[in-house]
Amino acid sequence: MFELLKQEKNTKARIGKLTTAHGVIDSPFFMPVGTNGTVKTLSFESLLEFDTQIVLSNTYHLFLRPGLDVIGEAGGLHKFMSWDGPILTDSGGYQVFSLAKLRKLTDGGVQFQSHYDGSVQFFTPEKVVDIQRVLGSDIMMPLDECAPYPCDREQAERSVKRTTVWARQSREYFLKTRKKEGDQFQFGIVQGATYRDLREQSARELMDIAFDGYAIGGVSVGEPVPVMFETLDWVMPLLPEEKPRYFMGIGLPDQIVKAVGEGIDMFDTCIPTRYGRHGSAFTRAGRIVVRNATHTKDFGPIDKTCECRVCKKYTRSYIRHLLNSNEILGLKLITFHNVYFYVNLMRQIREAIAEDRYQEFQKEFLQNYKSELEPSIV
Amino acid sequence: MFELLKQEKNTKARIGKLTTAHGVIDSPFFMPVGTNGTVKTLSFESLLEFDTQIVLSNTYHLFLRPGLDVIGEAGGLHKFMSWDGPILTDSGGYQVFSLAKLRKLTDGGVQFQSHYDGSVQFFTPEKVVDIQRVLGSDIMMPLDECAPYPCDREQAERSVKRTTVWARQSREYFLKTRKKEGDQFQFGIVQGATYRDLREQSARELMDIAFDGYAIGGVSVGEPVPVMFETLDWVMPLLPEEKPRYFMGIGLPDQIVKAVGEGIDMFDTCIPTRYGRHGSAFTRAGRIVVRNATHTKDFGPIDKTCECRVCKKYTRSYIRHLLNSNEILGLKLITFHNVYFYVNLMRQIREAIAEDRYQEFQKEFLQNYKSELEPSIV
Repeated sequence: MFELLKQEKNTKARIGKLTTAHGVIDSPFFMPVGTNGTVKTLSFESLLEFDTQIVLSNTYHLFLRPGLDVIGEAGGLHKFMSWDGPILTDSGGYQVFSLAKLRKLTDGGVQFQSHYDGSVQFFTPEKVVDIQRVLGSDIMMPLDECAPYPCDREQAERSVKRTTVWARQSREYFLKTRKKEGDQFQFGIVQGATYRDLREQSARELMDIAFDGYAIGGVSVGEPVPVMFETLDWVMPLLPEEKPRYFMGIGLPDQIVKAVGEGIDMFDTCIPTRYGRHGSAFTRAGRIVVRNATHTKDFGPIDKTCECRVCKKYTRSYIRHLLNSNEILGLKLITFHNVYFYVNLMRQIREAIAEDRYQEFQKEFLQNYKSELEPSIV
Repeated sequence: MFELLKQEKNTKARIGKLTTAHGVIDSPFFMPVGTNGTVKTLSFESLLEFDTQIVLSNTYHLFLRPGLDVIGEAGGLHKFMSWDGPILTDSGGYQVFSLAKLRKLTDGGVQFQSHYDGSVQFFTPEKVVDIQRVLGSDIMMPLDECAPYPCDREQAERSVKRTTVWARQSREYFLKTRKKEGDQFQFGIVQGATYRDLREQSARELMDIAFDGYAIGGVSVGEPVPVMFETLDWVMPLLPEEKPRYFMGIGLPDQIVKAVGEGIDMFDTCIPTRYGRHGSAFTRAGRIVVRNATHTKDFGPIDKTCECRVCKKYTRSYIRHLLNSNEILGLKLITFHNVYFYVNLMRQIREAIAEDRYQEFQKEFLQNYKSELEPSIV
């Protein structure tokens, strides 16, 4: 599945190639989030304009709405949403813990109530594999228990233990029900909260199970950014070089640039779409709030250095007017730019790695990039 | 400005050519409504995909937000919204009567309070020309008094009188302030409510003023459809052949097909965009409510006979799911199809007229087209 093409000279950054049933993906890469089978405000035609390589979608949401019968009859998620490229779906576990009502966790699985209609559902490791078989995602994730932040030692231990047990069940069931090698892949998810030994234990136990790739989960759940990166220090040395590494739910552009330098290959976050819908745009100089009155007569593009269709055509003044008028086009234009920014950033990252200048790239990026709202992580 | 290319053999339908500073428009044509400087949910790139010839925008809204200072500094409305094609702007009069608060009508003009922020504004015939000079619209409309439905005789008489006085002032001021012939055009608006003699009086008085084209206003304000078409019977024989005729705010597809047969050249309505946002799509067989549960597993396109990008790619099932999930893409896909449907309908209409088969076209269209919600006008 994964071919490591190059290890950068001065950092732990690397480039590789993931081969899926729906196409080859150059790593490191970013996956725009399409929770309900759509990357919010954007058509797939728009995503293809700038060579989006893969999208992520959410098992929990799709399972509840429109439901597996609809997606199954459509011929799977690719056909349902008319996207021929690769798809990664999560396990739904995170949403069960963050969105669902009245959940009841047992060793067998997790019972929960739909946050849409209150219907009672039960996820087991096997059922989550079955669901993702119907979805037909190229990369599926196993049911895990995502520990919150903060999390006491006892809970973190329990979560690692359960995650490993479920991971083993998931992998066995996945291999047993697989029709053909390579039609779908399955990753393991390292848990362990903020405890070094638990993170290391989780990583080792999952490696024994031999997944197709490894994700670091239970991050970006409210912990300070340095704590999030500490997890990488602990886990990354244990992960096999020859398998892809996925930092789940990360992150802001500067965090991505830093994590690539630690050897991460895969990212997903709803930041470019969600921030876009709230009027924020990403630029190489940091984030700007287009909605702000300072842009009322700003007839320049969101980002002068950006080559995206929106920056070549539309002004901050116009986009601000659209946002202030609650016009959907405003949300679309700013989201288009933001997702382009992320996808294009990954392209620049891959080029820098290929030319053994990632250290300089990273330094320059982090020097220029000023977030207005978060303390810099440099 | 207008060249009448052909009068159809068996009906009053005709094809022509309007030459504006921003391009030539083939008539009859439809103008998608871009109230706030955007056709709701669609980018201008989308509109150009199917050769939208012209858009309409609203003086009242743009005047209040973002305001003339912003659009003026941007270099006019074309530059502000990045649309190089022709634009028609209305006078704002209709919105003053339908949206604004606390309006006070005098012979000099109309005072009103912005429905956004309560600020007090005053429109005069001259000011409305000035505003549309700043907007730089290719076709501007003069301030008029749009009578409501129902409307008593006395009020209708007053409205016609005032509309004529204002029309004369508007035209004089327009000609006096014009920099160059053909940089902008100005139409007259026929009022007179549901009174034949007042409609005829209004038409004659406006023709004396010699506008560049003529609109029939004060229609689609709540009157029954047959009453609306009665207005055409009275007014159309009086309008000069060599000038374009615009049926303001009309209408449903079957109404457009009928009105073309009466010799109308120009249409605008927010129906395709507004109905789209409420989950209705237009097809040659009538309107369908994509949101309905019957489409849950309907994996066909909105309209099998439609050549638009949405129909070639997306299913009713997927679009219904998006609408039910409050996903913006759902609104966009259905609006895209609907506006395409209108623009494409006009293209088919022009072809039928060119080939002297408009009578058959009209008959076939009206036989096949079944509205679910309105009684047919056939």
